[in-house]
Amino acid sequence: MRLALAQINTVVGDLDGNAKRIGRRLAEAKDQQADLVVFPELAVTGYPPEDLLLRPSFVQAAQAKAEALAREARGIVALIGVPWFDRDLYNACAVCAAGEIKTIYRKRFLPNYGVFDEDRYFATGRDLVLLEHGGTLVGPTICEDMWQPGPPATDMALAGAQLLVNLSASPFHLLRDRERQEMFATRARDNSCLVAFCNSVGGQDELLFDGNSLVLDEEGHLLARGPSFEEALLVVDIEPADAIGRRLRDVRRRALARDRREVPDLPIVHVGSSHGPREHVEAVVAPRLDELEQMRVGLELGLSDYVNKNGFGEVVVGVSGGIDSALTAALAVEALDPRRVHCVSMPSRYSSAETRDDARRLAANLGVDFRELPIDAIYNAFEGVLAESFAGRERDLTEENLQARMRGVLLMALSNKFGWLVVATGNKSELSVGYATLYGDLAGGFALIKDVFKTDVFRLAKHLNERAGEELIPQTIIDRAPSAELRDNQLDEDSLPPYPALDKVLAAYVEEDRSAEELSADGFDPDIVERAVAMIDRAEYKRRQAPPGVRLRQKAFGRDRRTPITNRWNR
Amino acid sequence: MRLALAQINTVVGDLDGNAKRIGRRLAEAKDQQADLVVFPELAVTGYPPEDLLLRPSFVQAAQAKAEALAREARGIVALIGVPWFDRDLYNACAVCAAGEIKTIYRKRFLPNYGVFDEDRYFATGRDLVLLEHGGTLVGPTICEDMWQPGPPATDMALAGAQLLVNLSASPFHLLRDRERQEMFATRARDNSCLVAFCNSVGGQDELLFDGNSLVLDEEGHLLARGPSFEEALLVVDIEPADAIGRRLRDVRRRALARDRREVPDLPIVHVGSSHGPREHVEAVVAPRLDELEQMRVGLELGLSDYVNKNGFGEVVVGVSGGIDSALTAALAVEALDPRRVHCVSMPSRYSSAETRDDARRLAANLGVDFRELPIDAIYNAFEGVLAESFAGRERDLTEENLQARMRGVLLMALSNKFGWLVVATGNKSELSVGYATLYGDLAGGFALIKDVFKTDVFRLAKHLNERAGEELIPQTIIDRAPSAELRDNQLDEDSLPPYPALDKVLAAYVEEDRSAEELSADGFDPDIVERAVAMIDRAEYKRRQAPPGVRLRQKAFGRDRRTPITNRWNR
Repeated sequence: MRLALAQINTVVGDLDGNAKRIGRRLAEAKDQQADLVVFPELAVTGYPPEDLLLRPSFVQAAQAKAEALAREARGIVALIGVPWFDRDLYNACAVCAAGEIKTIYRKRFLPNYGVFDEDRYFATGRDLVLLEHGGTLVGPTICEDMWQPGPPATDMALAGAQLLVNLSASPFHLLRDRERQEMFATRARDNSCLVAFCNSVGGQDELLFDGNSLVLDEEGHLLARGPSFEEALLVVDIEPADAIGRRLRDVRRRALARDRREVPDLPIVHVGSSHGPREHVEAVVAPRLDELEQMRVGLELGLSDYVNKNGFGEVVVGVSGGIDSALTAALAVEALDPRRVHCVSMPSRYSSAETRDDARRLAANLGVDFRELPIDAIYNAFEGVLAESFAGRERDLTEENLQARMRGVLLMALSNKFGWLVVATGNKSELSVGYATLYGDLAGGFALIKDVFKTDVFRLAKHLNERAGEELIPQTIIDRAPSAELRDNQLDEDSLPPYPALDKVLAAYVEEDRSAEELSADGFDPDIVERAVAMIDRAEYKRRQAPPGVRLRQKAFGRDRRTPITNRWNR
Repeated sequence: MRLALAQINTVVGDLDGNAKRIGRRLAEAKDQQADLVVFPELAVTGYPPEDLLLRPSFVQAAQAKAEALAREARGIVALIGVPWFDRDLYNACAVCAAGEIKTIYRKRFLPNYGVFDEDRYFATGRDLVLLEHGGTLVGPTICEDMWQPGPPATDMALAGAQLLVNLSASPFHLLRDRERQEMFATRARDNSCLVAFCNSVGGQDELLFDGNSLVLDEEGHLLARGPSFEEALLVVDIEPADAIGRRLRDVRRRALARDRREVPDLPIVHVGSSHGPREHVEAVVAPRLDELEQMRVGLELGLSDYVNKNGFGEVVVGVSGGIDSALTAALAVEALDPRRVHCVSMPSRYSSAETRDDARRLAANLGVDFRELPIDAIYNAFEGVLAESFAGRERDLTEENLQARMRGVLLMALSNKFGWLVVATGNKSELSVGYATLYGDLAGGFALIKDVFKTDVFRLAKHLNERAGEELIPQTIIDRAPSAELRDNQLDEDSLPPYPALDKVLAAYVEEDRSAEELSADGFDPDIVERAVAMIDRAEYKRRQAPPGVRLRQKAFGRDRRTPITNRWNR
């Protein structure tokens, strides 16, 4: 049997574009004489369509697209993810064969945790179905269905499935692909079944899908793997009959059947017959990316998809001569093209000659448009207007934020005039503790590195230079102690614990929901814990108004972490 | 039997404060010789605690508080809403009697639509329980449980409950109280049961809880109603035995029992005995508020709770001489106190003498601090810095946004220096179509009227003046055609359809998920529909970065309407 997995990059709401994209891969799979071609979860609508699913007109249009695709799919069996309304709304797989939708599989396990809200939209599917193709029984499942250890996988296998197919839109986080492959390998062995996992690829607002589609044999061995963060049609010849042999050797399933008291008897829908003999295709096993490369490529795809899917031509980055903006600009150049990136330096009286030079050198190294817009005149004008109100008051954070906000206003003015998207430069460490100015350095359409801790900003910057084999980001930027340069001789570490210690606390408190007490008991410096926790909780209002950015880690701010602003719990 | 409903205003995360507040009402109910006192859903933690519920330390602390309250509750039966972990996490009602938690009822229906995300946190309760007090059987339920027409209400009534108690945190929207009372009256008659509904009151970020607690007899007649938007202890003497009489007259329940084939047999927990004879208390039936008063009082409570619960002393409003900022300032003064409100006018070359005067008169009428900070000097400084970049370009929206953003920066500078919360002034019509400047008029900690359509802004302004019996908001502000005054002779209607027509389209498209085609078929002007829909979808990125504000309508932006930014669906 020849299987094709189409890991495609869809756009939410773009039913026409997505259908064309699906149509092209359908044709390609037919050209390659595949028997079965699989598309990601909700491929017709893009994932996640969120509240578009509450619009009847949207759901109807998506169903009509699936029906049209089924007519196109004559000559191949196609499994296409689409929302399906039939007395209620389901997250479904349309099984297309012989020019029509033969049957609909409805997702049974709806995730409603982390970034997922599927209970908000979908009814729970109940009925399982097996597809018969040339004597092979194939069980269709959707994403979360296979993350459950029991049914539907176990029921389908007991009912005779030799191949379990999984349509997914499985969001990326760092090294997620390792865990996912282990899980699918375990499912393959537990059920003595081949497993084919077809994942989406691409960025959708904060979410990123990494591809890494998989085909595993009944022993959990890898037969094929799609590339990371790229579209692909993964074609592989499989022998589903081999599953039977393993079942006679590994008889755990018999005990499971005994335990259930009955073997499930699932409806079987005939979808096609075997092709004649074909020349064997060599399946691709794409290499894995290491953690730093996952960060780099993921951030670049997240940015380019946000920019391109939203119809922006060019972007602008405010570069300070510091490492966050340098990394942001360097990533933007790799993600887009030097001609699509503009860098603006906005020095003030507190900017040192060194950082001003570094900003300029960075732009030269990257080969991008660069301009310098000094802000002192604007600052003086603000001071003049506020002089009476502020009379007799000490200078404080106000004056620092004022500078950051003038820069935000300048970037937004360039954005308005030229249509450039402003890429904000704040990192996760700053955003966690609120060491960032609302409408200032937090201003922008996309906050590229908002889920990258400061310590990882340094790692990534070095990695970009090493990979390039040249100094993209000036070494002086990497070596200098971080400073916001909003007053004389300011260093981040005057206001914040050292980043290596801070980042560890942040990871445990923000991403693992550990309490301050538990962290101190775990040996973290109680003083750092206490300061960090107090700052994190107070900064929620800023995060609520921050731009979206790429989710890289298991718990990002945003959809993942829904914390009240009005909140007196601070432990 | 004497029943007390404590409709209280809790603070999310403030376990100590909430427990004290509960304790005071416990004592008061005992003083009034009540048999049973009921608190709102999750009263111990505040509602909704959101992802605080993912922190084990938080849940443990809440349970410990409930146990301490049970010890305090000796001498009365208290039903207290609290999250409860017992092998898994439940949204629960702790039944406190004789100094201990006698039993736990676990919420059976978890809402996961609209503003609710309860499937994200809680396991589904399965077991029902009846509480026996002096021969009366009481069925405890939690919020959504009673919005379902069947069980648990029907099962509890069949099993003998004469009184159904409902612990709620039922979010407000306009006229919601009418629908709610109708629903509870129907449940009372369907089940021949008395019904007691105890609701939260107060603002929590975007959500508002309106109180309006209810006690209905078995005929659905109103025995008592709590006030709107105020705390209260509602005490009422009831005769649960009357339910029996109605059951003999209205025998629909027998058919239901026959249909179920068996009468449910629920566990009965003894919680207390009747008091001796007491002097009868006269129950309060608080008057209902009409729609405009609900808006006014709701907005004021939403603001004062946001301000006070987050520890702000004072607020600042940028007043332009237009109606949105005038209404915002007037509401703020009523919500807080004139001494806690500051008004700032920030005129430019495009501000007319009339609007400048009106801004000043408004502040005088309201009796608040007023200052004028003209922005032309700052504007000129920005123009100077941007001159080279903008050389050869026409003036356009950029220069308009620039002015709005300078004002945002000035307000934030005052906020930073004096600790004032900036109250943003944008309305729902503007926010829908994106006729608002990100980091400009959208800047602020709280966007008070973001869920008020422009036509309602006018209604409310007139209402405030009528109620005051004097011109709080100068009539000239109400009469003038809306203008942003960001260029010469600018009127909102140059860029937007007339507000009365626009608001109707917005309500149908945004709040009812109707499609552009359906709206045109319904007789809306297709040109207005098309313009509005295109603007709405493009503005999602602005709404994502807007401050929180009071949710007034059935579908507000924010938790209610989760639309992707990257989205090509536009019908």
